[in-house]
Amino acid sequence: MEGDIAQLGQYIGAGIAGMGAGIAALGVGNVAGNFLAGALRNPSAAAGQTATLFIGIAFAEALGIFAFLTALLLMFAA
Amino acid sequence: MEGDIAQLGQYIGAGIAGMGAGIAALGVGNVAGNFLAGALRNPSAAAGQTATLFIGIAFAEALGIFAFLTALLLMFAA
Amino acid sequence: MEGDIAQLGQYIGAGIAGMGAGIAALGVGNVAGNFLAGALRNPSAAAGQTATLFIGIAFAEALGIFAFLTALLLMFAA
Repeated sequence: MEGDIAQLGQYIGAGIAGMGAGIAALGVGNVAGNFLAGALRNPSAAAGQTATLFIGIAFAEALGIFAFLTALLLMFAA
Repeated sequence: MEGDIAQLGQYIGAGIAGMGAGIAALGVGNVAGNFLAGALRNPSAAAGQTATLFIGIAFAEALGIFAFLTALLLMFAA
Repeated sequence: MEGDIAQLGQYIGAGIAGMGAGIAALGVGNVAGNFLAGALRNPSAAAGQTATLFIGIAFAEALGIFAFLTALLLMFAA
């Protein structure tokens, strides 16, 4: 058995962090899903809530990007 | 097999903490999703609850940033 | 392979504790999300429940901060 054991940790850690990016999609999906459910029930109000939709998506997406950033840092910077 | 086994722990730990940042997106998504569901049912009340929306997002987002901070500390400071 | 195997445990443990901070965001999101869902259904009652909203957020947030504190202690004090 050869190789640097610290690299083993980097790659396993990057994979776990990448899973976090995927989990964040559940949060984004909850925002967009609730928007669509409401917009299709009351289409006349949907245009007024588009800004809120993007705010909610942006904050949830940011956390998923942080998880992806952790994976990138583990692979290429740590 | 070579390398410092403590670094293995730092990198795997950073990945797990990065996953935590992604999980926090579920909380943010729940806040924004419920806001949108309610705002589209009762658009006239939505403007009055915008402050609460941002308070809820801010507290949930803060915990996700703490998790990301844990990942950064593990990679570069611990 | 070199290094202290106890440090391996400290760092992996810190990562798992950091994930706990992210999971606590689910609780915060549940409090704020349900407040918003109810406040938009019955806006006139929302102002009277703002104190309860902050109590709920504070207790859930405190547990997330405890998890983050556990991660910091594992990295720098244990």
